[in-house]
Amino acid sequence: MKIRVHVSLKNGVLDPQGRAIHHALEGLGFQGVNDVRAGRLIEMDVADTTTDAALDEMCRKLLANQVIENFRIEKVA
Amino acid sequence: MKIRVHVSLKNGVLDPQGRAIHHALEGLGFQGVNDVRAGRLIEMDVADTTTDAALDEMCRKLLANQVIENFRIEKVA
Repeated sequence: MKIRVHVSLKNGVLDPQGRAIHHALEGLGFQGVNDVRAGRLIEMDVADTTTDAALDEMCRKLLANQVIENFRIEKVA
Repeated sequence: MKIRVHVSLKNGVLDPQGRAIHHALEGLGFQGVNDVRAGRLIEMDVADTTTDAALDEMCRKLLANQVIENFRIEKVA
C-alpha cells in the first residue's frame, strides 16, 4: 500500500525556507507569487495490513512535530 | 490560486533521509514498512493569471533539481 504523508507548517509559524523560495522566485522575475510555504512529503510503501491508527501514530511519533506542523495522510493505492 | 508542488527523488537516487526515517520507524516498533522516500512539498499562493507554463518554469528553474528529482504540480483551488 502506497502512502503519502504531507507535512506542512501551521499557520503563523515562521517559514524562513518558504520566504527564501519566495524571494528567489521574485529575483528570477516571476510575478504574481503571493505566498510560499515549504513542507515535507514522505512517501511510504507499507504492508496492506497496516491500520490507519498505526499510520497516524507514525506521524505523531516521528514524521511530524505537532507543535508547529500539521500532517495529512493520503492513501495512493 | 493555490498550488502544491510535490518534489520527489527519482527512482534509483540514494535517499539517506528516507532511509533514516525508515530505520527510525523500525526502531519505534512499527512493522510492515517496506520503503520510505523523503521529498518536499511547496505550497504557493499565486495570482489567478499565472499560466501553467510559468508554474512549470518555476519548478524547472528553482524548485526542483531535474537531474535527480521529479516534480508534480497540483492546483488546489
